[in-house]
Amino acid sequence: MPAPFPEDSVGLVTPQLFHFDQPLALANGRSLDSYELMVETYGELNAEKSNGILICHALSGSHHVAGYHNEDDKKPGWWEHYVGPGKPIDTNRFYVVCMNNIGGCHGSTGPQSINPATGKPWGSSFPFLRVRDWVETQVRLADRLGINQWAAVVGGSLGGMQAMRWALEHPNRLRHCVVIASAMNLTAQNIAFNETARQAIQSDPNFFNGDYLAQSTLPKRGLSVARMIGHITYLSDDGMGKKFGRELRSGSFDRGNDQLVEFQIESYLRYQGSTFSEVFDANTYILMTRALDYFDLAREYNGDAAEAFKQASCKFLVVSFTSDWRFAPERSREIVTALMRANRDVVYGEIDSVHGHDAFLVPNQLRYWELFSAYMNRVEV
Amino acid sequence: MPAPFPEDSVGLVTPQLFHFDQPLALANGRSLDSYELMVETYGELNAEKSNGILICHALSGSHHVAGYHNEDDKKPGWWEHYVGPGKPIDTNRFYVVCMNNIGGCHGSTGPQSINPATGKPWGSSFPFLRVRDWVETQVRLADRLGINQWAAVVGGSLGGMQAMRWALEHPNRLRHCVVIASAMNLTAQNIAFNETARQAIQSDPNFFNGDYLAQSTLPKRGLSVARMIGHITYLSDDGMGKKFGRELRSGSFDRGNDQLVEFQIESYLRYQGSTFSEVFDANTYILMTRALDYFDLAREYNGDAAEAFKQASCKFLVVSFTSDWRFAPERSREIVTALMRANRDVVYGEIDSVHGHDAFLVPNQLRYWELFSAYMNRVEV
Repeated sequence: MPAPFPEDSVGLVTPQLFHFDQPLALANGRSLDSYELMVETYGELNAEKSNGILICHALSGSHHVAGYHNEDDKKPGWWEHYVGPGKPIDTNRFYVVCMNNIGGCHGSTGPQSINPATGKPWGSSFPFLRVRDWVETQVRLADRLGINQWAAVVGGSLGGMQAMRWALEHPNRLRHCVVIASAMNLTAQNIAFNETARQAIQSDPNFFNGDYLAQSTLPKRGLSVARMIGHITYLSDDGMGKKFGRELRSGSFDRGNDQLVEFQIESYLRYQGSTFSEVFDANTYILMTRALDYFDLAREYNGDAAEAFKQASCKFLVVSFTSDWRFAPERSREIVTALMRANRDVVYGEIDSVHGHDAFLVPNQLRYWELFSAYMNRVEV
Repeated sequence: MPAPFPEDSVGLVTPQLFHFDQPLALANGRSLDSYELMVETYGELNAEKSNGILICHALSGSHHVAGYHNEDDKKPGWWEHYVGPGKPIDTNRFYVVCMNNIGGCHGSTGPQSINPATGKPWGSSFPFLRVRDWVETQVRLADRLGINQWAAVVGGSLGGMQAMRWALEHPNRLRHCVVIASAMNLTAQNIAFNETARQAIQSDPNFFNGDYLAQSTLPKRGLSVARMIGHITYLSDDGMGKKFGRELRSGSFDRGNDQLVEFQIESYLRYQGSTFSEVFDANTYILMTRALDYFDLAREYNGDAAEAFKQASCKFLVVSFTSDWRFAPERSREIVTALMRANRDVVYGEIDSVHGHDAFLVPNQLRYWELFSAYMNRVEV
């Protein structure tokens, strides 16, 4: 994307690295003595520090939500279509904050970082994390920024889980909780897909039990297969059919050599897997899918989601997409039901879409845009 | 299963190997000079040779449809619950024939066989096959057995594709065509899952481009991941949830070491993948999934399925299962619609089931049993 950037973009943005020295006690009993968070912010924090929006990212996201990192940057941040001037998360009104979660691979402390105790990459020894650990680091970032209460905490998918955890654990520190294409826990099928992806990674002989960096190699083929599995499940059957159908990319059924026959969907998926495996960290993929699997909103509340949501005092927007079969509308309706049983204030929108789970990222979905904008416009700053 | 075998089982069965010397011209332009078929039969062929039933197997099936191979055999054939005395495919009335398809790995000529031209295993050089190639070998087996017309050709999933191809290509050689949990072609999503499974196999460094036998090794880890992918998609989300939920097999969320936490579904899937990879051939898996991808019933009929089915003269039973999302009821209704447009005689049953695609194999589904039995009872011999 050559400059000038589009007028409705936050434009050129620069991430900032925040260092934290206060030890972080993790949910699994271990701790991190210190850690760094890579952060981006857009818009201006107002004098009352009341217009902060925290965006929590999902499995393959990062702190880079919107805008461009330089004038030659080909692609903007992952939520460019919904975050910017005049967009649902309007940077003319809000001060938007997003960090790369710890355990990630985009600049925050994670398995690729050097473990100060050993002087070597953490690799397999990086602690497993829970969603609540991320929330704890986000709380500390808020403290650092002087934000006592977010106007809203917002997230899709795994990001939605973080937003809900905020609402339960820190009820006074957010006024709105926006939960998009998420769930209170994963189904067995979802865990099964995650485990198969992990197996693909761990089966790669270049994985070396997670210590591939020490071997100067990367388990790219395994990570590529893992991403292919994920990618299929983020799209809908219908959407994939409309986009690719049974079109061939090469070869023909008339030819003598079947080896040449290749469907469009095959090369598309392989490309997706291959490019992802060049930029993402395999240990992070394992860590994030485990955090997804382990998340269970109501576990500490006797499995009673309504009891859990009674801890919350903010208002909620819950959004789902009809063709999302990985985080189906039914799972969002469970959230809404629990919120209503807890007598909490909730707006729910079920958006017609062919884009599957990915719909929360996809542009040009008018009803989604309208609902999201209308809700955010009502968020007072 | 120690003898005596159950009374409603065909009991002890012995496969037979049939050798064919007449060259087989394949759909892709290559040919096999000779080949062998591993075959099982149950029941008695009547004097008129009019009571033959051909069962076509699916991706991971074999000629071993029912009964036991020896008195210590722990498991019966893959369709034991629906083939035997008094069962829907009643061996008191019918003479049942099933062969391992060529390209398979259960005794018929396939990638593990020795290529007579080289004296080495075929491996990667075994020709790719289409559904019509299997049908051609089945025609020759029928000739060998003296069966001019099958009472019915029956198959589930990939087997159903073979049954439909029989109806189009050899209309006078069957009176009934039974198509269970199948489709006229695969969707992009189905192709995507198959391609991801193939990538998992081909990414295994022990795959050696398909010539692993020459290296005295097997790509077990890749095949295991491939099977895990397949297995998830053969079950339903709901069925998996009912069977496994979020139950832990080991560990606890309270413990310090997350590495110990393991969901039931994870160990189940890994076990399924691992045991499959011990007994199945990776090249066969690739070959069979390619045949699935390439199958397109109406391709040679200008893409007009009704035009295709006008070639047929038999009667049809089409069965689907509500929770089957890999070969969804919608895909079966497309078959039924095309058959009606072609003015063909068709009975359609959509069975309520939580068992997903695997439902066609699963016992104790009363409505399925009743429909299948009622239809087969009307098949004259």
